[in-house]
Amino acid sequence: MSLENLNLNDYIRKVQDFPKKGVLFYDITSILTSPAAFAWCIEKMAEIYADKKLAAIAAIEARGFVFAAPFAAKIGAPLILIRKKGKLPGVTARKSYSLEYGSAEIEIIPEDVPKGGNVLLMDDLIATGGTLKAAKDLLTESGALVTDIFGVIGLSFFPYKDSLSGVNVTTLINYDSE
Amino acid sequence: MSLENLNLNDYIRKVQDFPKKGVLFYDITSILTSPAAFAWCIEKMAEIYADKKLAAIAAIEARGFVFAAPFAAKIGAPLILIRKKGKLPGVTARKSYSLEYGSAEIEIIPEDVPKGGNVLLMDDLIATGGTLKAAKDLLTESGALVTDIFGVIGLSFFPYKDSLSGVNVTTLINYDSE
Repeated sequence: MSLENLNLNDYIRKVQDFPKKGVLFYDITSILTSPAAFAWCIEKMAEIYADKKLAAIAAIEARGFVFAAPFAAKIGAPLILIRKKGKLPGVTARKSYSLEYGSAEIEIIPEDVPKGGNVLLMDDLIATGGTLKAAKDLLTESGALVTDIFGVIGLSFFPYKDSLSGVNVTTLINYDSE
Repeated sequence: MSLENLNLNDYIRKVQDFPKKGVLFYDITSILTSPAAFAWCIEKMAEIYADKKLAAIAAIEARGFVFAAPFAAKIGAPLILIRKKGKLPGVTARKSYSLEYGSAEIEIIPEDVPKGGNVLLMDDLIATGGTLKAAKDLLTESGALVTDIFGVIGLSFFPYKDSLSGVNVTTLINYDSE
């Protein structure tokens, strides 16, 4: 199969009422079980960022790791993990962000962030952009430049373009309604 | 730098008193921020399993994802995620395992497991082997054969060889004391 002929939508499992009633969940694990679709995603990322000098890739726990790790390995860039509170050892920086009910916190190890370097921030799916905004702020406060954010899937019926304004946001596939 | 000349121990950050007082934590994020060390790990995995016919790679959340994803991409094998309870959509199978205090549960999507296929189960670090044992049972009950388990780091002062008996357990580096 030619890479260009692959329709990514065919590899995204849609699960009704997950994680709660009324929500249609776009599942990326069905990309991972298809070596062709997974390779296609990584190849596309390499094409998109071929001309960018990336000092590091930053990935959001946990599904973001799955796409960021092979991409970082492919282009030979350092990989920085952005994790939920309490998971990273040593000296960390932390930021909270809002959820539908309440809030959560993410952490980074600031000494691993390249000062003045261009860092690509990644997750599997971009919805409200709340976690990505907090992650971008953590990276910026740790000395990085964040000009690009990548997600395999974008849900454009959420206002992520507003919360992530000033950054180039790129996705491989977009869904504009639930 | 030649791959063979790399000493992986140099790339593993040791953090005292994490996640709690008295514990020495072996941190793999310092492998990830070194493209050379990260590439070395993936290359080693490819060498170790070159002669195995692997129907899929199964990875344990979340650090296991980071090594399993580039390895699965490299060898063109399907990647199956084993996740904490409530994270995977659709029809899942679940198993609980003991923690130091209490217990936790992991899940898999059984329909993604190749029936009769040889599945390599991976995590970043093997300590008690409790999570890996539960994951192995989930895979086996879903129809897979699990003959090999891989961890980047092994902590042989834990009795994981007992809990994972009957399976080939391979690690890239071993620590025999805290």
